[in-house]
Amino acid sequence: MKTITLDITNALAEAVGINGIDPAEFTKTLQTISDYYAKLLAKPFPFMTLPSTRFQFDEMQALADKAARMKIKNLVLLGIGGSSLGTQTIFDALLHPFHNHEERFREEKPRYFILDNIDPHKMTAIIETIIPDLDRTLLVVISKSGETPETISQFMLFNELMKKSQGYKERIVLITDKEKGLLNKIAGKEGYRVLNLPEGVGGRFSVLTPVGLFPSALMGINIKKLSDGAAGMAAHIVRYDGEENMAFVLAAILHLMDKAAKKIHVVMPYCERLSGFADWFRQLEAESLGKKGLGPTPTKSVGVTDQHSQLQLYVDGPKDKCIILLYSATQEVPIPASFDYLEDVQYLANKDMKSLFHAEFLGTRLSLTEAQTPNISLTLDEVSDYNLGALFYLFEMVTAIMGHLLGVNAFDQPGVEQGKIYTKAMMGKKGLEKEREHTEALLLRRANTVVF
Amino acid sequence: MKTITLDITNALAEAVGINGIDPAEFTKTLQTISDYYAKLLAKPFPFMTLPSTRFQFDEMQALADKAARMKIKNLVLLGIGGSSLGTQTIFDALLHPFHNHEERFREEKPRYFILDNIDPHKMTAIIETIIPDLDRTLLVVISKSGETPETISQFMLFNELMKKSQGYKERIVLITDKEKGLLNKIAGKEGYRVLNLPEGVGGRFSVLTPVGLFPSALMGINIKKLSDGAAGMAAHIVRYDGEENMAFVLAAILHLMDKAAKKIHVVMPYCERLSGFADWFRQLEAESLGKKGLGPTPTKSVGVTDQHSQLQLYVDGPKDKCIILLYSATQEVPIPASFDYLEDVQYLANKDMKSLFHAEFLGTRLSLTEAQTPNISLTLDEVSDYNLGALFYLFEMVTAIMGHLLGVNAFDQPGVEQGKIYTKAMMGKKGLEKEREHTEALLLRRANTVVF
Repeated sequence: MKTITLDITNALAEAVGINGIDPAEFTKTLQTISDYYAKLLAKPFPFMTLPSTRFQFDEMQALADKAARMKIKNLVLLGIGGSSLGTQTIFDALLHPFHNHEERFREEKPRYFILDNIDPHKMTAIIETIIPDLDRTLLVVISKSGETPETISQFMLFNELMKKSQGYKERIVLITDKEKGLLNKIAGKEGYRVLNLPEGVGGRFSVLTPVGLFPSALMGINIKKLSDGAAGMAAHIVRYDGEENMAFVLAAILHLMDKAAKKIHVVMPYCERLSGFADWFRQLEAESLGKKGLGPTPTKSVGVTDQHSQLQLYVDGPKDKCIILLYSATQEVPIPASFDYLEDVQYLANKDMKSLFHAEFLGTRLSLTEAQTPNISLTLDEVSDYNLGALFYLFEMVTAIMGHLLGVNAFDQPGVEQGKIYTKAMMGKKGLEKEREHTEALLLRRANTVVF
Repeated sequence: MKTITLDITNALAEAVGINGIDPAEFTKTLQTISDYYAKLLAKPFPFMTLPSTRFQFDEMQALADKAARMKIKNLVLLGIGGSSLGTQTIFDALLHPFHNHEERFREEKPRYFILDNIDPHKMTAIIETIIPDLDRTLLVVISKSGETPETISQFMLFNELMKKSQGYKERIVLITDKEKGLLNKIAGKEGYRVLNLPEGVGGRFSVLTPVGLFPSALMGINIKKLSDGAAGMAAHIVRYDGEENMAFVLAAILHLMDKAAKKIHVVMPYCERLSGFADWFRQLEAESLGKKGLGPTPTKSVGVTDQHSQLQLYVDGPKDKCIILLYSATQEVPIPASFDYLEDVQYLANKDMKSLFHAEFLGTRLSLTEAQTPNISLTLDEVSDYNLGALFYLFEMVTAIMGHLLGVNAFDQPGVEQGKIYTKAMMGKKGLEKEREHTEALLLRRANTVVF
């Protein structure tokens, strides 16, 4: 097979001089990774086994079939961070871009609303949108710990709302840790259905569990194919070594870029359907590696759009970046001959938008490379369920390897705990009275402000 | 008035130690800016005069009234970079979040489709969406130079499409440079209406010209109020000096952060309606300042969503960032008491989503500050046309000042020319045969690839 191609030519010293990677260091890093991976295989991280275990696939399919029989019109998903980004990525990639706008584009499937924020303005808008079909609304609540205040507060609101419609208990599904946490208690008491995350799989590594797969199954997406893609990539990583192993090569490049003070990792899909994928990777990389004063900063650009926004900086600004281009286009859109009195535009006549799109992608690569800005490209033969599954697994593996190379634990997120405590204290949670006093004192400090 | 408040407390050394700004340097920078601004006032940049000239307001209103009489159902806007980001920002801020989904939310106004990309998959989706109402579709084509290949190729396609519907000439409006360029030639030949950019105003400074205002007028947005907000901010900047001048203070902080190797500027709105504003500023800052090896890298995060994605990195990662928080919330959404058998969630019962949203914003500020990550906050009393106009003018002025402090020309973008030439050469444009040979030679070089 040859469905995904990684091209690292323009990240090497041969192409981009001192901003590129030294071949000897590259080889050495690949060897370090290979040794590490051999140990990992003996004791894999829990996410690594997901493609082969197909955890709760039958339960998911049964619940999705039931939802189809109920002719659900709205899917409301409460979840934030790892509980929503995977689903959003899959939907962006595989559903019609105007799925929610018109019935003809969603083919009997429900509209979807992913509540990954508590912005009260947006929440009001979502509530007024779904309320006419409340009795055909399916609520999916996702929180690994069951204690995420954003998701719990939304659930309190939607729980009371759903109660106003008949048979609502059949239309609430919770996805949470196997045994622990508040969502399990709620499910037991209220009689709601529960799906789980397998043990040891954290939020940002959970897209290939019910967290990302159950909402996908509800949309008729083939979750087996997603899982097959991940399994295919897992097999590739086991089978190949060194420069033939896509995960090893990608991890080595990204790590060496970070080490060489190219600490801004720009993910730039030339493919709007992979726009969500850039956001998904943004969480995976930032939250896994951003600790102990270390870690690259991922940021998202979209080609060709951001050629007219960010490219100037990438070409001509500081050499503190590595550009990770993604490319896929299959659709053809002919450009008709028009304005035949203008010679200047005839080079576009009777060409195809796909060719122009591809020429822009190549033009960006070339101009970045000539400016000695290191860049790599991942080209997909198509944006399919299979390829998407493979990409998820690839980048999860890459991130785990980078954690090892950087010397940080890729699976915790200690830096966000303090903010959570402050928020809960300000909201008056019992037992946090001391913290509340502390925040109040901080907020009373003299502020330096300018007003308009 | 007090509609926008800038709080810089947590960017100063007093709050964040060595990662903060030294008071003496701050004062000195403010003085430099003040001196520069005095000179600027004598010979202002063209964008600075926009709020007082109200360029082509009558023409815009007449065309918008005519469109309303025609009961336009689809607005298709062809434009990229500065030709689309301003409109997208205004629509995100002031239209209903589900404007395009349902008629009841758009109140007789058209749906809108902003084609800021040539991704053939997305373009196909847009074409199949608008085609049933082609005879009620208004096409607005925006390109200052009239030579943007993306926009011209889209125009060739849509021009032929529109011709299939009766009276199409009345439903095509071009926005371009006063005299030069291909769009003026096309308008003359085909009889399409034209609106202009005033002389000397570049794409990324054009939101308060017909580029951003005409599409807004079509949606019933009060463009005079937008302009009034900009005029109000312009008056503030003329009237106040030093620490009382919002533009001077903001420019000084952002410049000193860049200088102190906090070169990543994270724009993080706690307000989904200002999500587009972050993208708009991203272009303004990157394309204006990213040159000669200099310039900060702007990136966007959205609160609270990205607390579960990027905050770990911002708190615990490298101190190479300055976080620019924006906050606004007015809507109230009560959280009902629910799950009364769970003591752990009762701190949320009978509170409001707005309070939780605000507590999260404050919690993030506090935890960033305790981690010594410099951060500033801009709080808006509401997301209104007036405030949005003020923000546009504020950040344009800040960017112009930063260009001066950095010693770069904020109004050109030489770094993107080479990529454009490569693209045109690959598409076979006459006169670029040499460049075509060059690109072909480059593309034939041996590539380092890994395949899956």
